[in-house]
Amino acid sequence: MKKIGIVGATGYTGVELLRLLATHPEVEISYVTSRSNQGSRVDAMFPNLRGFIDLEFSDPSSDALAECDLVFFATPNGVAMKHVPALLEADTRVIDLAADFRIKDVDVWSKWYGMTHACPELLEEAVYGMPELNRAQVKDARLVANPGCYPTAVTLGLMPLVKNDLIDRSSIIADTKSGISGAGKQANVANLLSEAGESFKAYAVQGHRHQPEIAQTLSLLSGNPIGLTFVPHLLPIIRGIHATLYSKSTASETVDLQTLYEKAYDNEAFVDVLPAGFHPETRAVKSSNMCRIAVHKIPESDQIVVLSVIDNLVKGAAGQAVQNMNLMLGFDETTALMQPALLP
Amino acid sequence: MKKIGIVGATGYTGVELLRLLATHPEVEISYVTSRSNQGSRVDAMFPNLRGFIDLEFSDPSSDALAECDLVFFATPNGVAMKHVPALLEADTRVIDLAADFRIKDVDVWSKWYGMTHACPELLEEAVYGMPELNRAQVKDARLVANPGCYPTAVTLGLMPLVKNDLIDRSSIIADTKSGISGAGKQANVANLLSEAGESFKAYAVQGHRHQPEIAQTLSLLSGNPIGLTFVPHLLPIIRGIHATLYSKSTASETVDLQTLYEKAYDNEAFVDVLPAGFHPETRAVKSSNMCRIAVHKIPESDQIVVLSVIDNLVKGAAGQAVQNMNLMLGFDETTALMQPALLP
Amino acid sequence: MKKIGIVGATGYTGVELLRLLATHPEVEISYVTSRSNQGSRVDAMFPNLRGFIDLEFSDPSSDALAECDLVFFATPNGVAMKHVPALLEADTRVIDLAADFRIKDVDVWSKWYGMTHACPELLEEAVYGMPELNRAQVKDARLVANPGCYPTAVTLGLMPLVKNDLIDRSSIIADTKSGISGAGKQANVANLLSEAGESFKAYAVQGHRHQPEIAQTLSLLSGNPIGLTFVPHLLPIIRGIHATLYSKSTASETVDLQTLYEKAYDNEAFVDVLPAGFHPETRAVKSSNMCRIAVHKIPESDQIVVLSVIDNLVKGAAGQAVQNMNLMLGFDETTALMQPALLP
Amino acid sequence: MKKIGIVGATGYTGVELLRLLATHPEVEISYVTSRSNQGSRVDAMFPNLRGFIDLEFSDPSSDALAECDLVFFATPNGVAMKHVPALLEADTRVIDLAADFRIKDVDVWSKWYGMTHACPELLEEAVYGMPELNRAQVKDARLVANPGCYPTAVTLGLMPLVKNDLIDRSSIIADTKSGISGAGKQANVANLLSEAGESFKAYAVQGHRHQPEIAQTLSLLSGNPIGLTFVPHLLPIIRGIHATLYSKSTASETVDLQTLYEKAYDNEAFVDVLPAGFHPETRAVKSSNMCRIAVHKIPESDQIVVLSVIDNLVKGAAGQAVQNMNLMLGFDETTALMQPALLP
Repeated sequence: MKKIGIVGATGYTGVELLRLLATHPEVEISYVTSRSNQGSRVDAMFPNLRGFIDLEFSDPSSDALAECDLVFFATPNGVAMKHVPALLEADTRVIDLAADFRIKDVDVWSKWYGMTHACPELLEEAVYGMPELNRAQVKDARLVANPGCYPTAVTLGLMPLVKNDLIDRSSIIADTKSGISGAGKQANVANLLSEAGESFKAYAVQGHRHQPEIAQTLSLLSGNPIGLTFVPHLLPIIRGIHATLYSKSTASETVDLQTLYEKAYDNEAFVDVLPAGFHPETRAVKSSNMCRIAVHKIPESDQIVVLSVIDNLVKGAAGQAVQNMNLMLGFDETTALMQPALLP
Repeated sequence: MKKIGIVGATGYTGVELLRLLATHPEVEISYVTSRSNQGSRVDAMFPNLRGFIDLEFSDPSSDALAECDLVFFATPNGVAMKHVPALLEADTRVIDLAADFRIKDVDVWSKWYGMTHACPELLEEAVYGMPELNRAQVKDARLVANPGCYPTAVTLGLMPLVKNDLIDRSSIIADTKSGISGAGKQANVANLLSEAGESFKAYAVQGHRHQPEIAQTLSLLSGNPIGLTFVPHLLPIIRGIHATLYSKSTASETVDLQTLYEKAYDNEAFVDVLPAGFHPETRAVKSSNMCRIAVHKIPESDQIVVLSVIDNLVKGAAGQAVQNMNLMLGFDETTALMQPALLP
Repeated sequence: MKKIGIVGATGYTGVELLRLLATHPEVEISYVTSRSNQGSRVDAMFPNLRGFIDLEFSDPSSDALAECDLVFFATPNGVAMKHVPALLEADTRVIDLAADFRIKDVDVWSKWYGMTHACPELLEEAVYGMPELNRAQVKDARLVANPGCYPTAVTLGLMPLVKNDLIDRSSIIADTKSGISGAGKQANVANLLSEAGESFKAYAVQGHRHQPEIAQTLSLLSGNPIGLTFVPHLLPIIRGIHATLYSKSTASETVDLQTLYEKAYDNEAFVDVLPAGFHPETRAVKSSNMCRIAVHKIPESDQIVVLSVIDNLVKGAAGQAVQNMNLMLGFDETTALMQPALLP
Repeated sequence: MKKIGIVGATGYTGVELLRLLATHPEVEISYVTSRSNQGSRVDAMFPNLRGFIDLEFSDPSSDALAECDLVFFATPNGVAMKHVPALLEADTRVIDLAADFRIKDVDVWSKWYGMTHACPELLEEAVYGMPELNRAQVKDARLVANPGCYPTAVTLGLMPLVKNDLIDRSSIIADTKSGISGAGKQANVANLLSEAGESFKAYAVQGHRHQPEIAQTLSLLSGNPIGLTFVPHLLPIIRGIHATLYSKSTASETVDLQTLYEKAYDNEAFVDVLPAGFHPETRAVKSSNMCRIAVHKIPESDQIVVLSVIDNLVKGAAGQAVQNMNLMLGFDETTALMQPALLP
């Protein structure tokens, strides 16, 4: 049994890690930390864990973390970077579910996250933890930057087109919609049920942190700069991201997009290409680590529309983190992640 | 045109007062106050009011309030009582939408609200503003205590039974369910869409402030003490209260409850007794000042079940306050309140 | 008082017409028809109308309709066209809330609606009832084709750009999201709360009937063909449409889009251009006839993103129909339509 | 591996059985039947099962069912009773998730279900499948009647009080609230998101089929007749039942209810007694087979209020059925059922 620590487990990615790891046969959750809840039982905050997690929150500054084989950071942006160097020094591997190690260019990172980076020397080493993109590097990584929720849905949706150079790179549009758990568990008037329920809106149209993250990945895939318009919206549901991805085909008529996508993800356990003509629903991935994708060519037009759905807390956060952990610790990649989505 | 002031208009009862008064033909909203939002436009906070309310929030300590004919307090408990004496002195009439003047017994009030009352001498004079109960007194009142949301639904539901002494007074049960706007607009983790959505729970089973308020009214109506078990629940909807009211009939078999209820509310514009066998839905009163009630006698049993629904922000707060204002200022009682509910 | 008839009032656009007309001071609802509910009370089906509408559903084949000054058809597609010629003959004016008279090209209409048109000779005369587009023609019209819900939100959002020739006409994208009341009141498994709740999906990506309707209007406005990709999505809310509209600017840098939009809608009672940088929410128009619009230029890009929200049942259906009726019958255009939206 | 058949798997209890059994290590789903969907893939109807269930719906009349070790009926009431005798004859064990075998008195059954029973001779033998009540009988049963959803929540909530004779048996009240998946997947206007969303109502106040089922169990437990008022309500959520249970204590003051409940369920894997003063939320059992219970004594009153929550599709249907199957086939009772609830 490998020893696992979770730093900052009082938020939604934290409780989701606990839910998924509670039944993982190869790991033992040793430390669950929270500065503000130190000493209180984890299952008093999260009643779904009663009977599954028999732990109290401990002090995050404890040396105990360094005794873990692997530590997850489910903390706000800017926390992990302060602890990672010491943990790596102690041979503890790290998966950061926040954004500290997602952007390679430290100036871009500082601009979007409004902080000076505490360990820019680790940005090069950190592996962007999307197994469908770079599984081999994840296996050997000491430090994994777990991708953002929107970037996971968008990147998996566009990867086959970008990699095969089939679209106009200069004008990709990602119209994305997220359930409100993506906004976290902070007390915030805007996220009250009375405010966000029975309503829908766009936000951050002038710029969102996930745009440079997606652009970085797609540019690397393409070998060329990418022009990406990214508009996020807030859905009045708890879990789920739906990305509607618009691009102009530059491919010849003979390219069969359906086949292209099916082949691209043929060996992936967590990417499901739907049959031609289907439309994925977010509920078909609720609670699961699956990304479901449909690709549509618009009749009498060069427009391609890709639809991509994930559960933002699973494949968009904790599930993908467990998938990365499985790879890093040498387990079967799907361990503890193969449950059908909850429907209805 | 009468001049109206609203103190503390940044919460849900405040914006609802503004929505209802925006089209009231006999009043002019002169002052809308908020300490923390002083100087900012009202419609920047409440975009539904763009084009209807051309005002900024002003300082609540302003003497301007005393120039109003009538002032609404849509403030937290304990605020109105500090300002009311001076306003009454200045011949400004007051409707308090909070609880400061609802309970006649100052010791009971202090116990439940955890404060010392600032002007206990006004408790006797304050009129409990439920027009169906004491319309005449409201007309002449200087100070109206607008009833709580649960008490409105429960009291209107039980009034005909209690007044006519038809039930066992010692064991009435009010199982009540409220939409989350009843919890107000404060930033509070428990009321996030992610926390309160797609879920349902009871709360405050060991005691809730509305129990003594209801018991006071029913005891007065009955002329005897009332034994009331009151259990509130939180509904994952924005607006609406549903009270399910259980009592044991002590009446003879010849009493026709349907007729009793229909007669009791025959002249009331805002209480609608549904046909026998119907079940009211909260959506049938959404946005409206109506209370809809159905009375059921359980077959082969002495159990009576009354179902009563209101919109907690309208008949349970701002709408009833406007109804009281209409009476106090000599307008038709229904002015600005006769709109069908929003369905679907 | 003008006499009004409503054909097919058992659906959501029907009950919404009744809600709005119930308090209209200049009209009297004379006939409300429904083949399947003939003889039953309107307010037994729609409890929100108890106390407002004292009518039974009558037989739609009745000659009584011809005695009305104006008749609304809130029927499925293909019904109005069978009755309109006789009503016009009898000097009764008609507003069709369905699609029978929205498309000028009868072949395009037949292709998308799968029927032969019963009175193609009236297509030319029928006025497309969007007052912001052609107010003068509506006033004199005998027959008004009330626009679709998506087309209202999209057209109002794009009108200033298209009319002033400021964008690349060949590649406009409308990513649209609708509340489920847009799907009507038919029993349909896909629209159950258990199926559509807590989920989100695109639909009809391969083609939707509202695409040719929008393209027709924009092409007329532009004087040139328009290339429009239209992707609708289903929101798990009851009311509201949000259109996110993408286009590439062809204008010089000196054009100020914010000013352009504000001037374009300066005199319109029901189009509200939000301040620069704002994002409209669907709840800010819930129950109201308002369309709220924000226009965004993406930094360091030629991409324009327009956000446009309406209540699909009001400005997207019954409210716009009443606005058209007001114009046709010589009333103030805003009569019975000036209520703030319901928020929260 | 045991061979399992599911009859009528196109409804919500059917898909939930498939979700739970998909990862059960000891069984193989051999036949999934549906008359109307014969020949189509199961995962085309239920996209959450893509990758988990590689089967087509087959003809329910097939003899293949008799080859199964155990067959679940997830059919409407009245279907199982027609097939059960032949299956038992063939030594196939049966769990009926509908109501055919829940009521021992055939006349009571016929009155509430409006049918003549096809095999009344089996009513005596059928075991009421609530393991917490009669685990031993379930193990040996050929035919299990899986309890109703409301009866599961109510019975588990009241069992310790009734069994120990601590309350007034004549006037128990069960105010119950169910998520809409309890109404099934039939196309029904009343269950549309547009109709049932953002609303709340009671239904069937004059009588509901689950009342006699609960009364039968409680009377057996008590050894005396029970007076039970049962009022169900419809919650605008997909999954979850909350029962609020009112009874009058007849016990001496020295009985500690908290201890009583904790002891009563000490050895039960799927009943969780919350700490004193807690209130269970339906979301804390969503997707899980757990029943969470809190017991409250109202201060200065003899009123006891018990709060009991389950997921109506799991402990209220498919999960309890799998629990019964585990007992019948000699597996560990918790196999495939030990997953934390999905929260948020």
